[in-house]
Amino acid sequence: MSPLISRILMIGLCFIPSELIAQTLPLTPNLINFNSSEGETFLIESTARQDYIPLSIQFETQENGAFCGVASMVMVLNALSIPAPKAPEWRKYKRFTQTNIFDNPKTQEVMTKDIVSKQGMTLQQLGQLLASYPIKVDINYGSEVTLKEFRQRLIDNLKQPNNFVLVNYLRSTMGQEKGGHISPVAAYHQQSDRFLILDVSRYKYPPVWVKAEDLWQAINTKDSASGKTRGFVLVSVE
Amino acid sequence: MSPLISRILMIGLCFIPSELIAQTLPLTPNLINFNSSEGETFLIESTARQDYIPLSIQFETQENGAFCGVASMVMVLNALSIPAPKAPEWRKYKRFTQTNIFDNPKTQEVMTKDIVSKQGMTLQQLGQLLASYPIKVDINYGSEVTLKEFRQRLIDNLKQPNNFVLVNYLRSTMGQEKGGHISPVAAYHQQSDRFLILDVSRYKYPPVWVKAEDLWQAINTKDSASGKTRGFVLVSVE
Ligand SMILES: [Ca+2]
Ligand SMILES: [Ca+2]
Ligand SMILES: [Ca+2]
Ligand SMILES: [Ca+2]
Repeated sequence: MSPLISRILMIGLCFIPSELIAQTLPLTPNLINFNSSEGETFLIESTARQDYIPLSIQFETQENGAFCGVASMVMVLNALSIPAPKAPEWRKYKRFTQTNIFDNPKTQEVMTKDIVSKQGMTLQQLGQLLASYPIKVDINYGSEVTLKEFRQRLIDNLKQPNNFVLVNYLRSTMGQEKGGHISPVAAYHQQSDRFLILDVSRYKYPPVWVKAEDLWQAINTKDSASGKTRGFVLVSVE
Repeated sequence: MSPLISRILMIGLCFIPSELIAQTLPLTPNLINFNSSEGETFLIESTARQDYIPLSIQFETQENGAFCGVASMVMVLNALSIPAPKAPEWRKYKRFTQTNIFDNPKTQEVMTKDIVSKQGMTLQQLGQLLASYPIKVDINYGSEVTLKEFRQRLIDNLKQPNNFVLVNYLRSTMGQEKGGHISPVAAYHQQSDRFLILDVSRYKYPPVWVKAEDLWQAINTKDSASGKTRGFVLVSVE
């Protein structure tokens, strides 16, 4: 091999983009990795990113395969800064965790931790579990909203502080593996018409910018556990 | 009360900034909350934020009071995308956690999970624990660097991908409660001469923008466990 080609190859090896050596699953071309130059640019250009910092500083990984809804709830409850329970691991400090979120008797009346660990949760159950805390909860089924309504309701929320959006969608509709999933939405990028999902299964996928239409299609899918469509939940302080 | 005053008070109550109802401890005026308008502006204006997105999407909370170093290591190892161990809770997926990071026999030779749980770690131990993985580790003591050198080494790193900065500092020196602490640094803001610390004790403090000089003073403090000063560690893929 010529020294020049060898040198070019070495330079190439020194600058492998982090996307190529990631542990997570590959993304289909319709999805844009947040952890990329383009993904960063979209955040900088976004004019509907009021929820991004509050959510990103609470970002956490779902503790098991059924806990996407639980991790998403913990993120928004911590981001809303409502009174939180103690967590024994941190002595006097108070913070929602994927364990102590079930300490509230009203939450347990909706579903116990054991049941959620076995079967996850439907859109309605997500809304009911959230409503067991002193916040305002608005459940929206995919079947009830046009693309235009869906886009506008999310944008309105993403421009306001102290309220948040959680989406319940079918991954396979937007090119991911595979089933129903729940995560918070953190921002909207107008030029590309994309929403930023902070995917709580961080072992599996990075956060992605997804086309509004793809996400709307993915929430307008039937959940066999409920017989209804998936959708989104808006939460705010009361 | 006049209807006008009553209306003003109501509007006031509807727009309580999230800082005022946060669960975390209050910040002294020398520190700027990342979760604020000014904190967001600094990120947008930063020209040394290459590490911000890779670290922020791996942000996690230390699992107990002694695990600041462990949580910081987990964040940078996941951000470096080096081969990770399996975690039983996520079946086939691989990702560093504050538990499986100790599965590596070379890591255990430095310190076991039990010992770190009891006594935390010094700067040198942080470097040695990191070096038990296939990455390049550069340990820097606070006593060895001028403010100018400290600022420049961090800025150089924060402008490059695939390498990261961890700081070991005394909280009380920069106005926080209270002892030695470890967290990753995610960005630098030139106009205000501040670094962004993604504080892993998320139950206690939000991420903060701290003056370069304050952080330099806080790493140039003696750790009674080692008899040496605290400092910072630079890590990169080999
Ligand atoms: Ca509704
Ligand atoms: Ca909002
Ligand atoms: Ca050195
Ligand atoms: Ca870097």
